[in-house]
Amino acid sequence: MMLSEYTRLINERLKKAIECKNSKYKGLYDAMAYSLNAGGKRIRPVLVLEFCRMTGRDFHAAIPAACAIEMLHTYSLIHDDLPCMDNDDLRRGLPTNHKVFGECNAVLAGDALLTEAFYQISSSELADIVKARCIMVLSEAAGLNGMCGGQYLDTNYDDELSEEDIITINTLKTGALLKAACMMGVICAEGTDEQLNAASVFGDNIGRAFQIRDDVLDVVGNSEQLGKSIGSDSKDKKINYMSLYGEEYCLALIEKLTCNAKDAVRQSFSDTSIVFDLADSLAYRKN
Amino acid sequence: MMLSEYTRLINERLKKAIECKNSKYKGLYDAMAYSLNAGGKRIRPVLVLEFCRMTGRDFHAAIPAACAIEMLHTYSLIHDDLPCMDNDDLRRGLPTNHKVFGECNAVLAGDALLTEAFYQISSSELADIVKARCIMVLSEAAGLNGMCGGQYLDTNYDDELSEEDIITINTLKTGALLKAACMMGVICAEGTDEQLNAASVFGDNIGRAFQIRDDVLDVVGNSEQLGKSIGSDSKDKKINYMSLYGEEYCLALIEKLTCNAKDAVRQSFSDTSIVFDLADSLAYRKN
Repeated sequence: MMLSEYTRLINERLKKAIECKNSKYKGLYDAMAYSLNAGGKRIRPVLVLEFCRMTGRDFHAAIPAACAIEMLHTYSLIHDDLPCMDNDDLRRGLPTNHKVFGECNAVLAGDALLTEAFYQISSSELADIVKARCIMVLSEAAGLNGMCGGQYLDTNYDDELSEEDIITINTLKTGALLKAACMMGVICAEGTDEQLNAASVFGDNIGRAFQIRDDVLDVVGNSEQLGKSIGSDSKDKKINYMSLYGEEYCLALIEKLTCNAKDAVRQSFSDTSIVFDLADSLAYRKN
Repeated sequence: MMLSEYTRLINERLKKAIECKNSKYKGLYDAMAYSLNAGGKRIRPVLVLEFCRMTGRDFHAAIPAACAIEMLHTYSLIHDDLPCMDNDDLRRGLPTNHKVFGECNAVLAGDALLTEAFYQISSSELADIVKARCIMVLSEAAGLNGMCGGQYLDTNYDDELSEEDIITINTLKTGALLKAACMMGVICAEGTDEQLNAASVFGDNIGRAFQIRDDVLDVVGNSEQLGKSIGSDSKDKKINYMSLYGEEYCLALIEKLTCNAKDAVRQSFSDTSIVFDLADSLAYRKN
């Protein structure tokens, strides 16, 4: 109930989040809007809003941060799908951005979404200290030592990947941004350092569980449910938990990480039922 | 003297600006550092530092903002040179990023530099209000309604470009960031609204003059001085001031814009000699 309310609100706000001031470059706006409004689970913005609420502030305060992280996540999907990266044709059941708007405009749409994410926060009505801290957390999670570093490893891997390497890739590529989402929620509500740390551990663990579930679904899921080509990762010989250790090991690990996530937040927040449900829905999802 | 001191300082700080926390993605760090340390005129960071000083604060305070705008500018060059954009092989006399590191890593290096630009400011010791205002100005200048919009128009132009269209492209693609540089200097020194406005008009005018000089040099300059292939713009049939109105008109316009720039700042700042020299050196440069 709460989750669907969040998702509805986020979808509504994302539609109005970016202003196109000149019709001459409306084509670029359209490319940005195409991917931003293509649906998706809105996991990261939901986490921002819910952690803000759990920390004791009206979740509406965190809407700019929630929109920002979804814009940033969307940019990463557009660039990851590019011919020079994963070369994917399908995303969320729709043709990928470069398939519709061309490669040049897909690169630009990603660039602009990433940039506008920071405008979203800096131009909001949040307190200056909240803006500065949110932007620091978000840019650190998305930069060299976060998502970009993870994507680099994922696309430049060699055949000698160790379990540690896979953890690093998962942590950077997926975990960093989920962790940032939880932390930004606490920051928007000006929570304690203890709450910030709990949110960080929660995000890190659900991030890893999420990525392992992704690997499992890539092998045992079906194309229609997942909205992308089955085996699209393994066909390019990508090594992951599933290919190394098999389904049983992966399922046990997902369970363990989800427990770790819940344990982390139990003490620091009074009302954790929604994030517990969310953790379960990510860990045990079918698509 | 002052300018070469600024440039030396910026080059030194840029080398230490980005921390690579894991040797596994050192290759991405190397791609970022390759373009960031490839020289260049450092016009934008110099403007940040000098406007900070002109506004009455020690210019060292503005170093994080200066590094940030150069990182952002560098990302835009890497992405502009990509095969799907301008497809250039040479930049600042060196092979372009994708020629050295491959297309995938060039996209990622640009993405990471753009992201780290915002980390640079948000993680600095600037006051929170200064961080928030700098990031707002920078992200607005670089986003849909700034540089990305301009690059979209430049790469999606049709043959019917009007003079107004060319002004729009120049203003967005080059002017927006130069304007942001001047404004960020004033913001770092917590100057008045009048000073901020003067800096904005100055940056806008030198930006337009700079771009027109670029067009002139592309036709009459030589490859060695410019550090990129002569006619690399016109060979792709790009319409610009030079192709539309010829050299005489362009030179007169450069003169007029440079005068406008100087007029804008004369009243709001007491010591304008360095930015006047800078405006002249950009407007009348040979490479």
